Amino acid sequence: MEGAPAGTVAGEGITAEELRLAARNHGLPLEALRHEITPPGLHYLLIHYDIPAVDAATFVLEVGGAVEQPLTLSLDDLRARERVAEPLTFECAGNGRALLEPRPVSQPWLTEAVGTAEWGGTLLRPLLEEARPSADAVELLFSALDRGVEGGVQQTYERALPIAEAERALLAYEMNGQPLLPQHGFPLRVVVPGWYGMTNVKWLTRITVLEEPFTGYQNAVGYRMYKADGTPGEPVTRMLPRSLMVPPGVPEFMTRERHVEPGPVTLVGRAWSGYGSIERVEVSTDDGATFDAAGLDPPLGPHAWRGWRFDWDAPPGKHVISSRATDGAGNTQPLEPPWNLKGYANNAVERIQVVAGS
Amino acid sequence: MEGAPAGTVAGEGITAEELRLAARNHGLPLEALRHEITPPGLHYLLIHYDIPAVDAATFVLEVGGAVEQPLTLSLDDLRARERVAEPLTFECAGNGRALLEPRPVSQPWLTEAVGTAEWGGTLLRPLLEEARPSADAVELLFSALDRGVEGGVQQTYERALPIAEAERALLAYEMNGQPLLPQHGFPLRVVVPGWYGMTNVKWLTRITVLEEPFTGYQNAVGYRMYKADGTPGEPVTRMLPRSLMVPPGVPEFMTRERHVEPGPVTLVGRAWSGYGSIERVEVSTDDGATFDAAGLDPPLGPHAWRGWRFDWDAPPGKHVISSRATDGAGNTQPLEPPWNLKGYANNAVERIQVVAGS
Repeated sequence: MEGAPAGTVAGEGITAEELRLAARNHGLPLEALRHEITPPGLHYLLIHYDIPAVDAATFVLEVGGAVEQPLTLSLDDLRARERVAEPLTFECAGNGRALLEPRPVSQPWLTEAVGTAEWGGTLLRPLLEEARPSADAVELLFSALDRGVEGGVQQTYERALPIAEAERALLAYEMNGQPLLPQHGFPLRVVVPGWYGMTNVKWLTRITVLEEPFTGYQNAVGYRMYKADGTPGEPVTRMLPRSLMVPPGVPEFMTRERHVEPGPVTLVGRAWSGYGSIERVEVSTDDGATFDAAGLDPPLGPHAWRGWRFDWDAPPGKHVISSRATDGAGNTQPLEPPWNLKGYANNAVERIQVVAGS
Repeated sequence: MEGAPAGTVAGEGITAEELRLAARNHGLPLEALRHEITPPGLHYLLIHYDIPAVDAATFVLEVGGAVEQPLTLSLDDLRARERVAEPLTFECAGNGRALLEPRPVSQPWLTEAVGTAEWGGTLLRPLLEEARPSADAVELLFSALDRGVEGGVQQTYERALPIAEAERALLAYEMNGQPLLPQHGFPLRVVVPGWYGMTNVKWLTRITVLEEPFTGYQNAVGYRMYKADGTPGEPVTRMLPRSLMVPPGVPEFMTRERHVEPGPVTLVGRAWSGYGSIERVEVSTDDGATFDAAGLDPPLGPHAWRGWRFDWDAPPGKHVISSRATDGAGNTQPLEPPWNLKGYANNAVERIQVVAGS
């Protein structure tokens, strides 16, 4: 712990507490990047407290706070409204955390906290208009049914969003054409295109229109980028660009080092950003020294990952291979991890160990 | 590493290699024990190599080796045979490994590597009879489509089973009435009631009748209980009894310590064994000093977990609570972990930290 900031560790193995989280939450096994839409059970999961047991028959969503017409809607009421569906890529804000040094102690993600589903439901905006929000409304607060203790405070999971962003949200009751699974928010969650996953509040039961910014835990304390303890920090918002590849060849059980035959190898992967479409993906086969352009697949949707392909002639020997994404807003992945106290938004370029030949 | 046996660590945090496995594989979030049949995506997963991409249209199962009539069956051929379905509880042989000291370095399970599904398919026995095995047959070898490197050997995952045990197996193409998910062995796996999970070979493509015991990696090197390095070890076989409870109250985010109101708390959980039906479950609320009998639910099936219930009047303060199962063969869970070099079959009684009141 030699001088590492509070809440972080330097040069140490994963703690028992981090392991407890890693045993519950899970990432996308990277070979599942082969699927354009992530199959059930392979999408990443990050659950702060416990998965609540919710009775769909008695479930209601309330819309209240600074509105003229509070609303109470059953699941049937929501299903009776216009249905829309869209493929959306979600990524946990903590993705990449366990690759930081010193390492912030929380869910210890490597790079795999991602997934893409077709989320189906009804748009929030027309529903909000029916509630007639106050002209002074600044944020919407999304409150859930899961409860726990965090930062010493017993709380339900709830997060607020600026009203202009919240108006783009979907109230989702379906994932890939099926009712939500318990772990993905059954029966209802909010999904917000382009933002990190903490925004997509699961087990949603209340939307509150606020005339002052929310000061609760998940906005004011958690999910902020702090350069150092005691500073106010900046809120975590949209996903920075990232590309990941289907690891080529076959893995070694423990190390996950990849084994390929020397010669032609087609590398494939997917890239995404919350700041706009993916405009460029490059591949390095020399540990980031040089990069060459990959071919891009047609877009899957404006807020979903984009496939890419790159032909590599693997020479015998050991290699570190990487892919790097650039989005339409000009953001490019860094080679070195950007550090902050809670370990958010580390979108440093992946590094995959490959052995060609024996 | 002070004197810890090769392949284990003493008094150290989880290594980068263990974390890589923990990020891919995942357990049952323990609150999901509330479900008699585990929903998709919540069943535990342990995958040695990568999830292979299998084309169901061209997939075949071959039955060969020491048989008079080798068989080749498509998925349609298998589906045309008599269908049976049964709820079966699976548990990883490495469950409990990360609670051992010194700790064997592999997938670092705590206690949550379990799940119950209704597996549907066709029985192996009549199919095997059609192949007319040699009178000298001793084992069946189940070979899969996933490949990797383990113990320095590039291999497909394959495991052999004594023929009397193998004849009880189901060739499963459905899980909870749906085609297998990719991560659970699509399109076909073998399932063997009562044995630890490594037996239930996923992505099954070949069954070979053997007249001599199999000497491949997963039987002769892996999945053996070694008291020390260099000893021959004993094979890992059936699941020892274990009980787990739905953790009461609400969790603290990092520690997963439970917070309940003082007063009446109904504890519920599930218990299983590969050696026979669950005959007794007891609960301790004083860290294992004393145990009292829980009430048992009716059995779900001969090879599935059994629900139980226990009323606790929680006094204010900190508690360690546990449940303990005993099976019809007289096996009872130990309070102290049984140790072996690879960390298999640690069925020591669970210990859940609970705070009643603030």
